[in-house]
Amino acid sequence: MKLHILGCYAATPRTLTNPTSQVLEVKNHMFLIDCGEGTQVQLRKHKIKFSRINHIFISHLHGDHFFGLPGLVSTFRLLGRDKELHIYGPKGIKEAITLLLKLGDSWTNYQLYFHELTNKEPEIIFEDNKVTVETIRLSHRVYTNGFLFKEKVGERKLSIEAVAKYKIDKAYFQNIKNGRDVTLDNGTVVPNAELSFDPPPPKSYAYCSDTGYKPDIVGQISNATALYHESTFLETEAHLAVKTKHSTAKEAAAIAKAANVGSLILGHYSTRYKSIDLFKEEALEVFPNVELADDGKFFEF
Amino acid sequence: MKLHILGCYAATPRTLTNPTSQVLEVKNHMFLIDCGEGTQVQLRKHKIKFSRINHIFISHLHGDHFFGLPGLVSTFRLLGRDKELHIYGPKGIKEAITLLLKLGDSWTNYQLYFHELTNKEPEIIFEDNKVTVETIRLSHRVYTNGFLFKEKVGERKLSIEAVAKYKIDKAYFQNIKNGRDVTLDNGTVVPNAELSFDPPPPKSYAYCSDTGYKPDIVGQISNATALYHESTFLETEAHLAVKTKHSTAKEAAAIAKAANVGSLILGHYSTRYKSIDLFKEEALEVFPNVELADDGKFFEF
Repeated sequence: MKLHILGCYAATPRTLTNPTSQVLEVKNHMFLIDCGEGTQVQLRKHKIKFSRINHIFISHLHGDHFFGLPGLVSTFRLLGRDKELHIYGPKGIKEAITLLLKLGDSWTNYQLYFHELTNKEPEIIFEDNKVTVETIRLSHRVYTNGFLFKEKVGERKLSIEAVAKYKIDKAYFQNIKNGRDVTLDNGTVVPNAELSFDPPPPKSYAYCSDTGYKPDIVGQISNATALYHESTFLETEAHLAVKTKHSTAKEAAAIAKAANVGSLILGHYSTRYKSIDLFKEEALEVFPNVELADDGKFFEF
Repeated sequence: MKLHILGCYAATPRTLTNPTSQVLEVKNHMFLIDCGEGTQVQLRKHKIKFSRINHIFISHLHGDHFFGLPGLVSTFRLLGRDKELHIYGPKGIKEAITLLLKLGDSWTNYQLYFHELTNKEPEIIFEDNKVTVETIRLSHRVYTNGFLFKEKVGERKLSIEAVAKYKIDKAYFQNIKNGRDVTLDNGTVVPNAELSFDPPPPKSYAYCSDTGYKPDIVGQISNATALYHESTFLETEAHLAVKTKHSTAKEAAAIAKAANVGSLILGHYSTRYKSIDLFKEEALEVFPNVELADDGKFFEF
């Protein structure tokens, strides 16, 4: 999995910082997650091909996660897109985007599908043979979902040595990868475990922004390879975090620790602080593997 | 009058070019004209104080003139604005902005007034004691207005020498500036023309974007100090200009010439061309005083 951070600052776009948007590369998908104002410029800047984006996941309908979407949808049209585009987000997103397109008499010339979310429980909203995406119910001032991107368990890996030893024909390889035993011409059954190795453990990425401290998500995201968790504030502003339903870096780290994730990526910083290093310092007191998102930064896990 | 070009390129925001937005400074007003995506960042970049903007004029509801407005309206709230904000634009603009605010449960804490435009004839949409703003009816794919910003004729300028010669008391100065004659203590009437000079001729700025070639606007904008006229295309793409209801540089220059304006400022360039100098070259064949808008450029007239 590769994660491109296009923007990870709270509230308003500024000269040097962008509101939330990121692209997750997983199993040949380029999933766009949130789309603050300026996202399409960030995509260009970081040379991410517009044509590779077919699925957009919007956590909630605050401007800093959403106001770049009308422009992106329009730009897809101007670029001559003909592939389907799927947008997942809270109920209302369809009305908003279609109203803006209608006012500009600028209907898309590609199929635009809205998947409006209203469920109060986590649900699977995307699935193919390699990946699932499920919602994570977050606690914010408006209806908000995080997203859990999970690879499915892959095929078993062929043991080149073993198939050579038993002189097994290529025609059986896919069966072996699928976990089947092989019966040789002499009637001997070679168990699959001798012919193949376990596939690499599937990876998962949990995106949690925006949200107040919500420990009941821990079960769902436990053992995620990476967790992006918002940390708008430091503990010194914990009262503001409660008031505005955001989290502190310490709270994000507490979630990461309880969920035993591989690494915690912090983001959605308030711009009131001198340096984002302060968020890392605070989180490190609770959880050891902390990374700082920043605009243009790239993670691989 | 001072004109700050925040963005002047057609279609979509790009890494180095911004969609349409500009700020006109006139008689203590900072009028924001159009508001493409990224306008609020351009305002910051060019150090224009958000708090000085009280009137926003939107020509039409295509994204490249409008999709920065929801974010700007939201940012005003986050910055703690308490002054009124007036937005002038085509019918539908109120529904769009209020829907987006409603979905984010992010109502403004300042008074937001929408002045929705539907008139098919030019009309005065703003007036105070120093300035008027009237619509210019343009011809585009959707209902579109240009805007004509006109200074009113100012006060007459006091002749310091004349008032000293006649020993006229300060108390009469405002009357003189207002054009009145003065009766001296000995009964002599000193005509105003002897006591004051004509005020400087009022300036005017005509903003025409987006529009196809529309010579019937010439009367209304005649003798404007400066005309901003879109030139999306060059004559080599005149067929596209007709098809998409945009203008070529030559057509913009023909309007400028017929209206006898002081200077023509070109903008709203398609990014298909190698250099915007080509627009200037083409326009200069028709009209002598041509300027090129560019993002971050500043004009004074």
